[in-house]
Amino acid sequence: MAPTIDPSLRPWFDAAVANDGRSLWAWGTVERFPDTAGRRRLAGMAKMLTGGAEAHLRELPRDEDARVPDARVVAPETLAALASAEPRDRAAHAYGRAYPDLVRGFRGDFSGAPDVVLRPRTAEEVAACLDWCSDARVACVPYGGGTSVVGGVEVAAERRAAFAGVASLDLERLSGLLEVDATSLAVRAGAGTRGPDLERALAAHELTLRHYPQSFEHSTLGGWIATRAGGHFATGPTHIDDFVESLTAVTPRGVVATRRLPASGAGPQPERLWIGSEGALGVITEAWMRVQRKPRFRATASVKWKRFVDAVGAVRAIAQSGLRPSNCRLLDAAECLLHQVALDGTSVLLLAFESVDSDQAPLLARALELARDHGGVVASEENRSDAAEAGTWKRAFVDAPYLQSALVSIGIMGDTFETACTWDRFEAFHAAVTAACQDALRRTVGPGIVACRFTHVYPDGPAPYYTFVAPARAGDELSAWREVKAAVSEALHTAGGTITHHHAVGRTHRPWYDRERPALFGDVLRAAKATLDPAGVLNPGVLID
Amino acid sequence: MAPTIDPSLRPWFDAAVANDGRSLWAWGTVERFPDTAGRRRLAGMAKMLTGGAEAHLRELPRDEDARVPDARVVAPETLAALASAEPRDRAAHAYGRAYPDLVRGFRGDFSGAPDVVLRPRTAEEVAACLDWCSDARVACVPYGGGTSVVGGVEVAAERRAAFAGVASLDLERLSGLLEVDATSLAVRAGAGTRGPDLERALAAHELTLRHYPQSFEHSTLGGWIATRAGGHFATGPTHIDDFVESLTAVTPRGVVATRRLPASGAGPQPERLWIGSEGALGVITEAWMRVQRKPRFRATASVKWKRFVDAVGAVRAIAQSGLRPSNCRLLDAAECLLHQVALDGTSVLLLAFESVDSDQAPLLARALELARDHGGVVASEENRSDAAEAGTWKRAFVDAPYLQSALVSIGIMGDTFETACTWDRFEAFHAAVTAACQDALRRTVGPGIVACRFTHVYPDGPAPYYTFVAPARAGDELSAWREVKAAVSEALHTAGGTITHHHAVGRTHRPWYDRERPALFGDVLRAAKATLDPAGVLNPGVLID
Repeated sequence: MAPTIDPSLRPWFDAAVANDGRSLWAWGTVERFPDTAGRRRLAGMAKMLTGGAEAHLRELPRDEDARVPDARVVAPETLAALASAEPRDRAAHAYGRAYPDLVRGFRGDFSGAPDVVLRPRTAEEVAACLDWCSDARVACVPYGGGTSVVGGVEVAAERRAAFAGVASLDLERLSGLLEVDATSLAVRAGAGTRGPDLERALAAHELTLRHYPQSFEHSTLGGWIATRAGGHFATGPTHIDDFVESLTAVTPRGVVATRRLPASGAGPQPERLWIGSEGALGVITEAWMRVQRKPRFRATASVKWKRFVDAVGAVRAIAQSGLRPSNCRLLDAAECLLHQVALDGTSVLLLAFESVDSDQAPLLARALELARDHGGVVASEENRSDAAEAGTWKRAFVDAPYLQSALVSIGIMGDTFETACTWDRFEAFHAAVTAACQDALRRTVGPGIVACRFTHVYPDGPAPYYTFVAPARAGDELSAWREVKAAVSEALHTAGGTITHHHAVGRTHRPWYDRERPALFGDVLRAAKATLDPAGVLNPGVLID
Repeated sequence: MAPTIDPSLRPWFDAAVANDGRSLWAWGTVERFPDTAGRRRLAGMAKMLTGGAEAHLRELPRDEDARVPDARVVAPETLAALASAEPRDRAAHAYGRAYPDLVRGFRGDFSGAPDVVLRPRTAEEVAACLDWCSDARVACVPYGGGTSVVGGVEVAAERRAAFAGVASLDLERLSGLLEVDATSLAVRAGAGTRGPDLERALAAHELTLRHYPQSFEHSTLGGWIATRAGGHFATGPTHIDDFVESLTAVTPRGVVATRRLPASGAGPQPERLWIGSEGALGVITEAWMRVQRKPRFRATASVKWKRFVDAVGAVRAIAQSGLRPSNCRLLDAAECLLHQVALDGTSVLLLAFESVDSDQAPLLARALELARDHGGVVASEENRSDAAEAGTWKRAFVDAPYLQSALVSIGIMGDTFETACTWDRFEAFHAAVTAACQDALRRTVGPGIVACRFTHVYPDGPAPYYTFVAPARAGDELSAWREVKAAVSEALHTAGGTITHHHAVGRTHRPWYDRERPALFGDVLRAAKATLDPAGVLNPGVLID
């Protein structure tokens, strides 16, 4: 079918959708962006952390100053009810929330904006959108919460030339809790459902998915599946991979719907092709997810060490004990400083055990025994059998990304990167990665702080998560950041880690992903793409070329 | 390179390899095949179970009466050191150990024998074998322990015509424990390593893989990975999928080696394409596996119910409690009768908790509380903190397949099939599947016994495992079996289960697998196959056409 593009069409636009309170350039909502007093405090802290870098409060950008290029295509009449060409709406879909996204957004540079935003209401409408994109050679970028920190929703400028235009396929209308199977503890939900909406709907059934990535408040079920998101919990079921019972994806070739099964040994697991496919192999429209009853028992503690290496030994012992703490978050001294957990150079382990069923005190006691065996000093301890869902960590956890945006607004570069490696190589790995980051910072912008915590731990290795804060290179923030990013990515790869444990590949991590992935697996992904997306319109540049 | 096939070559043959004590037709070793007294006892029991079917001890087949067709191809000189064309060796590689395999083997019919057996010693030699097969259009069947119960190692007669011949690629020489990382609790081992050999080598390091499929004594690491094997334990790490840290596979296009990582979020997980690939997408040559320290604490109990449905409710509560028992094996009344666990019509739950680290009595106590809440009566209970690896269940467990072979030798048809489904549909599912099996037996051979147990349980559903015993249709055993197999497979599929939870697809389950799998995922597998195995020589007919 030849494409029907009528430039006289009036684009559909629902102001409530595009102006849902989210910032055009910064993380999350405008309302929760730190105020002037907050930014001043942050500037003081940044000065301390970076050894004296002066931070200046810059004037915040105004939406009306956002520069959005003219649209190259408009949607055909058949899709008019789903399509928006409104410049602010397009700008809001231009980027994720990686450091380069924040910097460009702060500058009012929305050159990465799609030409049109499509909001299908059904799987059939998703198929119609894909038909149009395939026929009209329009790149189609599935869009969930727009929280990618790896360039997951932006087609690179040099790649756009190969397409007539770019459509952002926003799945927000394919949302909501659709079915509850309380017997099997499983629910069906739309891919566009955001974290809080899903948990609110589940709470009415006394259920919870209990998947809390840091982007929880804004990101969506479909986005979590497409990017293999990791939740807050350190062990046990925490990755979205474990929660997917079945899924439905619409591809340009048709619909894929897997069967609801608790387990199967029938060939390679089909869901695994779409879990982590990052929008390149189809549009996930809904999924059956394994849910849980809310935990009622909770035992928590914090433990301190003078030496990080001893703490690492304790965490390894706990990870290999089979105790499966829900939280086992080790913060090194710099991380403690960043989060104001300890200022005396100690490393701190935050431990928690949770259960729907039974008292967790014995498990915590045994974990603390292991911690003490490795020289740890227990700083606090609590056991509760009447716990409401833990909320103490949640606000600080989901608010952390606001600080990165605020740092951009005061001329400071702050970013994170994360990985996983086996325990045998961790000591050398950590030394090499930290040194590479510090060297790159010194080379580009001057000294900064590099902090490390373990977000997840496995019997065979930890998932270290690094944060760095340093002065930005005023006016040329991006090239400095790119140099640091390349240096740390190269160090992660060379030292034997993965380029990403839970931030996904997107476009930013591609060069190292391409080297990490077996070449023939790359060939298979290309063959899968050619099979499912013959016109190559789905999120081009992601995973494969 | 053109194939070099010199018919004057003397095939290599190592008598010790082909005559390793394994029966040519029956399960396992000749030595452990039931003796005449044992077969008489079995005949008596079969008569009772089938409501009077007479069993007759038939004369056991002699190896020298095995009929093996002439070889159609011989290996080229370059592979002479790896190749065997000895008829008994070829016969030993003809079949797995499914019911039709036993029946044909008992008859001396080895028409399914490969033309040549290749035993590469290195990954390079595997590549050389694949080169020859691709060039000479020889079908190549990767062979581990030969314990497939789904036709996994036999190219169907009608498909052979498309090839110049068939080679069995026996991986027994690619075996052994190759590397131990005691810090990360991970080891590297050759794909051809059999269960007992692997565990013996690990024991020297005070480690265990703790993966016990029923075929454990004969099957291999590579076979477990290729078929997504399930271990004995009911919950927690028990599937081979969970133990694979990285793997190496040789394909006709080259080698795939994934990176050792405890976890990663970088794209679709590459290992998952080969886990369950059943030899169709490459030859797994080695893997890094997650291992454990041996459990020391063990708490066990058995619980009885008058009504199966109440027992199912209790098992669901335990599966959803987060307690994670290592064993949670529910036997219905017929299953109890078969295994002489109880003869009074009760259903019995065998519960066990194991840990390397801590006393399991509290967990068992809580599970028993849940069982009593559902009307269960605790029949026995034990707690030990000094446990050696549990051995009591092991001998009976790994010996069970010998009984099936012995039944064939007395004219009785006995077989098993297994599945998984969500809890919400289990009651109707179980009724439909049991009825379909009983009906099919009545239609074909007369009434038999149909028994059910849960081998594994998940929060969202059980994995029911069915056994049936009935008279064989003398002289036409296979057509009767095929009719029963088709009826139960159709029932599994229609009632919403999977065609296999841990027996793999092979060739037997293909018709239902093809319907269970999303059609577009089948297209992707075909594309993957075309990418990795352009000549289509790897285990043709498995997974895809």
